[in-house]
Amino acid sequence: MSWDGVPEAFQEWWTKRARAGWFDVTRIPFDEMEGWSFDGPTGNLVHGSGKFFSVEGLRVTDGDGRGSWAQPVIHQPEFGVLGILVKDFDGVPHCLMQAKMEPGNVNTLQLSPTVQATRSNYTRVHGGQPTRYLDHFRGPGRGQVLVDTLQSEQGTWFWHKRNRNMVVRVTEDVPLHEDHQWIAWDDLRRMLRIDDLVNMDSRSVIASLPFPPGPGDTGSPEDIRSPGAASPGAAHHSMRHILSWFTEAKTRCDWSARLVPLAAVPGWTRSPRRIGDEAGDRFDVIAVRVQAGNREVPGWTQPLLAPRALGLAAFLVRRIDGVPHLLARAGHEPGLLDRVEIAPTVQLPDAAAGGPGGAPPFLDVVNGAAQDQVRFDTVLSEEGGRFYHARTRYRLIEVGDEVPVRVPEDFCWTTVSQLMELVGHGHYLNVEARTLLACARSL
Amino acid sequence: MSWDGVPEAFQEWWTKRARAGWFDVTRIPFDEMEGWSFDGPTGNLVHGSGKFFSVEGLRVTDGDGRGSWAQPVIHQPEFGVLGILVKDFDGVPHCLMQAKMEPGNVNTLQLSPTVQATRSNYTRVHGGQPTRYLDHFRGPGRGQVLVDTLQSEQGTWFWHKRNRNMVVRVTEDVPLHEDHQWIAWDDLRRMLRIDDLVNMDSRSVIASLPFPPGPGDTGSPEDIRSPGAASPGAAHHSMRHILSWFTEAKTRCDWSARLVPLAAVPGWTRSPRRIGDEAGDRFDVIAVRVQAGNREVPGWTQPLLAPRALGLAAFLVRRIDGVPHLLARAGHEPGLLDRVEIAPTVQLPDAAAGGPGGAPPFLDVVNGAAQDQVRFDTVLSEEGGRFYHARTRYRLIEVGDEVPVRVPEDFCWTTVSQLMELVGHGHYLNVEARTLLACARSL
Repeated sequence: MSWDGVPEAFQEWWTKRARAGWFDVTRIPFDEMEGWSFDGPTGNLVHGSGKFFSVEGLRVTDGDGRGSWAQPVIHQPEFGVLGILVKDFDGVPHCLMQAKMEPGNVNTLQLSPTVQATRSNYTRVHGGQPTRYLDHFRGPGRGQVLVDTLQSEQGTWFWHKRNRNMVVRVTEDVPLHEDHQWIAWDDLRRMLRIDDLVNMDSRSVIASLPFPPGPGDTGSPEDIRSPGAASPGAAHHSMRHILSWFTEAKTRCDWSARLVPLAAVPGWTRSPRRIGDEAGDRFDVIAVRVQAGNREVPGWTQPLLAPRALGLAAFLVRRIDGVPHLLARAGHEPGLLDRVEIAPTVQLPDAAAGGPGGAPPFLDVVNGAAQDQVRFDTVLSEEGGRFYHARTRYRLIEVGDEVPVRVPEDFCWTTVSQLMELVGHGHYLNVEARTLLACARSL
Repeated sequence: MSWDGVPEAFQEWWTKRARAGWFDVTRIPFDEMEGWSFDGPTGNLVHGSGKFFSVEGLRVTDGDGRGSWAQPVIHQPEFGVLGILVKDFDGVPHCLMQAKMEPGNVNTLQLSPTVQATRSNYTRVHGGQPTRYLDHFRGPGRGQVLVDTLQSEQGTWFWHKRNRNMVVRVTEDVPLHEDHQWIAWDDLRRMLRIDDLVNMDSRSVIASLPFPPGPGDTGSPEDIRSPGAASPGAAHHSMRHILSWFTEAKTRCDWSARLVPLAAVPGWTRSPRRIGDEAGDRFDVIAVRVQAGNREVPGWTQPLLAPRALGLAAFLVRRIDGVPHLLARAGHEPGLLDRVEIAPTVQLPDAAAGGPGGAPPFLDVVNGAAQDQVRFDTVLSEEGGRFYHARTRYRLIEVGDEVPVRVPEDFCWTTVSQLMELVGHGHYLNVEARTLLACARSL
């Protein structure tokens, strides 16, 4: 974590934004929330408008229909827009980024996309101000669309949540709001290495930014984001092989998941101030009151999901025939639309603990890495609009021949370029893998 | 419909296969089915093993949560394998195809992929024989995988149904079973123009066959199936534009669908021999007894879905700057996993009627086409293992400037190459669009 190399102009702007706004977040009992209540028959936590989101139950059933378990989950069926405007200044690509406060952020203010708006936001269900810069992403006057895909978010906390990830290029002048700043791509890449600065939504969009690859990338020097771009010859596996591996992993997955009433979730208890698992190792659902100075609305109450621990997400990186590869994993998460997406090599809700049911493959390699193997190691925050102090330690660990090219069936070696080709479509990479893909581009 | 140009050797083999096997399909009352029954609390039609498939209810709810409707639906959560083996003979690509009988086929015998097996089939839940040629598609000894994706099937009749579409290339000798025959790609393409010959599963896989394009195709002369292949410069829209159009269409879709008990489906009645809609314009669920001579098991009973009418699926085709384009539509179907996939320009359950709620866009163009505008017009069967006499009239209609380049927001002009690039991934093209894509390759 270091601000070394971050332009002074940015640091000045950032300090100013941090001083200009304020956020007072107080935990309150559920019954002090305004507009939110527990639905009678289901026990679901819902908003009176029927909009925003709800907290419901999710039940997972084994293939043989016998074993099953359940948990609370956030259900937000609408698609939001996460959009970054890009523009060349003197031939250098810049991204229009926003200083944005979210109630769940440990540090209140983080760097957000140009537009980060739920449908409730931009259709103004809560009667706030219109979303700035949204017209560049929607409607007839928008710029050149470079990226426009639906991407999943946390499948352990959300039910079928997707957001529309967009990158739009403009050539005309764009009026600059004081919360917004043009940031050169090279500076933005470096900022990923600063703890809790670049927020989850930014990272998700950055993973798909169609800019030239850095030195850590391999393959086509042109537009590597385009789904039409050729796979690099240097990759260990062809894209066909990777797609087949992914299809095979999906067919092996024989459990199913569905929404159930929150009241029908066993093993979780609701008290006046929290809904939590009795074992105490997952998360709480809590309620907060937010007093804000510069958000769309002056103050509100809402539920947040508060994980109990710092998470861990890590890719192993090794050279195969001289080309860096990331060790992708077919990750199963109950809230993902198709249950399986490509995930980091190791992904755990608690960085300090093993996985449920013993340590997962390669956790020992991640934990045992010497300092000179660590290519990336930064703690970053998850979505502060839904999660309270949810943070994950993101790591890229370089390994050598001690990790073989031949790996268990849930794993597959892939290049950065191949993952970027896949992220041109939805439902291939989960949000943690997309964060690490963005981080890999910071090297 | 003509067998002109079909090699005599094929015709002889086909006649022989038709004589060798026999299928006696009798409609029976539900209570004469063996192993199948209506589940007490839900009213779902299920098999005692818990395997195969079930008939359940599907409910669609509008975005505002007010309007809703329901229908029966086939629920088969497991993934089957639809695989075609390909091999070069004297430099000419051939496909290993199968003469396969299905109880719902109007003509019993149709041309099927090398392997067409549900998971229940190949794990031998019903104790049948092992699936021939399956080892070429699964396990360590398989050939070179050219295609391996999960593709959807009818979203109006199935709930979240997907099958694994595979193409595998072999170079070694493959023992030929009497039900199987190597067919040259050029012959297979022509056979698509014969009524009820090439079955739905074959068409779905043929749509993705990575063979050189015919004269009707545009773009890369190499392997146009590869997701890594470049988009042709001659296409009216870039692939980015098409992906953005598709994402936009998904975000406009604000209804949701879920499974409900069959007993909770209003407007449909169950009698001893059928479950049907009271309006009489959708379909029946019926029961049949099958006596067979050459299938995996000697005889069985099962439910089938029997549509009331001949369906219609048609793409408009027009040249834009000299390049043929198909008019794709963002089609909404309640049983599709993500609700929206690319569909033919016009798709109707009843070719003779308008759509529900008035004629859909471009139906008048399809119905009013002069003979010299009709590039393709063949009646083909849908999956005979689940549907009874389900047939669709597939049409490709060439149009000129009278259909503008600028089309309503649910439509988009695309080239064959672009659709083939998309079909390299799952969940882009629905099964009717894939059939028509295969048909377009027959021209």
